[in-house]
Amino acid sequence: MSSLDPAVIALLKDPTMLIPAVIQDSKTNEVLMLAYMNTESLALTLSTGKATYWSRSRNELWVKGATSGHFQKVISVALDCDGDALLLHVEQTGVTCHTGERTCFHTPIALGK
Amino acid sequence: MSSLDPAVIALLKDPTMLIPAVIQDSKTNEVLMLAYMNTESLALTLSTGKATYWSRSRNELWVKGATSGHFQKVISVALDCDGDALLLHVEQTGVTCHTGERTCFHTPIALGK
Repeated sequence: MSSLDPAVIALLKDPTMLIPAVIQDSKTNEVLMLAYMNTESLALTLSTGKATYWSRSRNELWVKGATSGHFQKVISVALDCDGDALLLHVEQTGVTCHTGERTCFHTPIALGK
Repeated sequence: MSSLDPAVIALLKDPTMLIPAVIQDSKTNEVLMLAYMNTESLALTLSTGKATYWSRSRNELWVKGATSGHFQKVISVALDCDGDALLLHVEQTGVTCHTGERTCFHTPIALGK
């Protein structure tokens, strides 16, 4: 089990909670997906440079691309002002979404209703 | 109370849950913040065009900028493939973060540890 640097843990609002992570393409600036991290997946992301999440549906660590080959090479990680959200800049191999779309955010919702 | 179009509700994975919303600057593509929405705040966001969230700390609707003047004019809204995360493109008046920074994601975490 990989563990997180105590200096990083100290920055988190609540290290026992899952933290939403926004994934942004480092080249196009497109927002690709939102996933969740626990401290172990964040530690693995930082040490391996491969985006690693906590799958809430499968209840397990999830190296993005482990099955699809669509890995995310992590370029940078930033924490927000409250210590309860992350932003990752990544180089995406292939597409992000399991539907084959480049980004998971491909369903527009109309304004003005 | 503002209510959400049933056609939009039908797209959501669980309309009773808070939905994380990623806020991206429509001009610079910078990711500005992450906030949460319930169906009422999403309905207000869509109908007023002003980004409106659910404050988890204050347990109330929160029109971003209501106290600071730093409103967010909503340009577009998209839902992700799972129906459990939102992406908003906004025109930000002033800065996003209460610290005075342009984005809330201003704390870098070093890779390679």
